[in-house]
Amino acid sequence: MDEFAIIRRFFTPENKGDSVIVGVGDDGAVLRPSPGRDLVSVVDTLVSGVHYPPHMLPGDVGFRAVAVNASDIAAMGARPRWMTLAVTMDAAYQGWVEDFAGGIAHAASTFNIELVGGDLTRGGENVVSVQITGDVEPGTAITRSGAKPGDSIYVSGTPGDAALGLSLMQSGGDLDPRLDYLIRRFTQPTARVELGQAIGPHASAAIDVSDGLYTDLEKLLAASQVAGCIELNDVPLSQELRETVAFDDALRFALGGGDDYELCFTVPAELFGGSAEIAGVKVTRIGYVNEGEGLTCTMDGQLHEYRDAGYRHFQ
Amino acid sequence: MDEFAIIRRFFTPENKGDSVIVGVGDDGAVLRPSPGRDLVSVVDTLVSGVHYPPHMLPGDVGFRAVAVNASDIAAMGARPRWMTLAVTMDAAYQGWVEDFAGGIAHAASTFNIELVGGDLTRGGENVVSVQITGDVEPGTAITRSGAKPGDSIYVSGTPGDAALGLSLMQSGGDLDPRLDYLIRRFTQPTARVELGQAIGPHASAAIDVSDGLYTDLEKLLAASQVAGCIELNDVPLSQELRETVAFDDALRFALGGGDDYELCFTVPAELFGGSAEIAGVKVTRIGYVNEGEGLTCTMDGQLHEYRDAGYRHFQ
Repeated sequence: MDEFAIIRRFFTPENKGDSVIVGVGDDGAVLRPSPGRDLVSVVDTLVSGVHYPPHMLPGDVGFRAVAVNASDIAAMGARPRWMTLAVTMDAAYQGWVEDFAGGIAHAASTFNIELVGGDLTRGGENVVSVQITGDVEPGTAITRSGAKPGDSIYVSGTPGDAALGLSLMQSGGDLDPRLDYLIRRFTQPTARVELGQAIGPHASAAIDVSDGLYTDLEKLLAASQVAGCIELNDVPLSQELRETVAFDDALRFALGGGDDYELCFTVPAELFGGSAEIAGVKVTRIGYVNEGEGLTCTMDGQLHEYRDAGYRHFQ
Repeated sequence: MDEFAIIRRFFTPENKGDSVIVGVGDDGAVLRPSPGRDLVSVVDTLVSGVHYPPHMLPGDVGFRAVAVNASDIAAMGARPRWMTLAVTMDAAYQGWVEDFAGGIAHAASTFNIELVGGDLTRGGENVVSVQITGDVEPGTAITRSGAKPGDSIYVSGTPGDAALGLSLMQSGGDLDPRLDYLIRRFTQPTARVELGQAIGPHASAAIDVSDGLYTDLEKLLAASQVAGCIELNDVPLSQELRETVAFDDALRFALGGGDDYELCFTVPAELFGGSAEIAGVKVTRIGYVNEGEGLTCTMDGQLHEYRDAGYRHFQ
């Protein structure tokens, strides 16, 4: 099959919604936006061996490529609508592309996104870029830069699970099936799309946790030109994480490990209390925004030094 | 510099237009569409060593990555508005990224497109994906599938120049400066953005010539479920192409060589005559649409066999 046949067979959805006037197969897609809404555009790339282990199942690569982008849409408080796909595949594409396309389709259905176009090229390694366009009521997009002193800092779910899952995948060998949950948190991360839209009217700032809770929260605080302090005992840890590694390591995974695609956000004062369930997702208050700059941590209320580099592609 | 510093320094435009509510630097861009227009979304990837010679100047790589996408927008008869960028860079990025970003900015200014977001990652080879969102009056987007028997087939400019330019680049050595024009047709291809919008109300179908005039016209005819016949003596050849290679080779470059990013389109009957200048670009009638399927060629009115494979990434 040449790329045109591959696209027709694996990347052309059977049905298209009313908003898709021209879908996959022409020079471009023609889309009909909902009147009066702003657009939100995001793009993220996964490189084999950099963002995921080369032996990760192709269906998981496809799912994950969509989910990490849907997560950016969620962090803006927007609704995902349409996606395009740019895929560079290496020589082993024939055993890979069908399952990969299945993962893309699974994620599209999970997050209610329509695949409307793409480009398929040959290269030396697998590189997958997904671009999603969403929409939002004008004035309600959540940026990173609106946090104010006195706001509470929240995180959704239980960060750190995906990073431990990745670490378990990389250690290889047969794994205790009880660890499947952790690995699935890496291979099929959540994108908190409903949560993002639900907090849109309340949140002063939001970011999705891709590079690590600590470093991503630092970015949010810097963009908002404020300081923050989090209490490490309040960082929500999953039972699976707590039972698999020591407490100190669990904290390190939760603060320093990326890949969870939970949302970290700020809201005025005590809006959601110590924790709340919003759009079916638990959110937990982990600290407060202050005047100044930088992120500090406390443990049982005492200042606690935490060093974190976050993930950097270039140094 | 880490990727965040690279993005701030090289990929954050100094000014943003009124339609860009949130630009580069957040989880996503927030864009305000013009009321009542449809969106057009395109994406295309350039892989080093596949789509361009590895030694091509980084500024040209940046320009070209934008131009090939602007060309897809042009082929839909749409106006380019915003772009996002997904760039994977190899270890040599430090000597590359500034000039590459300069080429992106030059193309953005040339084609009047705003850079609103992107993702920068590290990998084993340079892979550049550009995604452009444009807009169009509802019902006026030109697809590949509207050509009707009796329509005339036109091509813009002089196809084949870019393919010869690439061939000259790859042959290496010092080149006659008179050949610069041909090489520039490859490194800085036109995107016929004004032409596309001008023919929008008239054209029944259009495609941009990326894989070769013959194979791209075949795709248009197949999508429209019609046949076509072109007269090879009517294919417009540049003086530079004619003077550099023999006539037979010139025709082969014009029909089989991609990379020109001219537009091939169909219009009812004799609308533009044998040739016309539209939006400052010469368009030439090269044939007609018929009932049936497939593309045939004539030379001086006699059936002429032409074999063409077009470019395929996968076989």
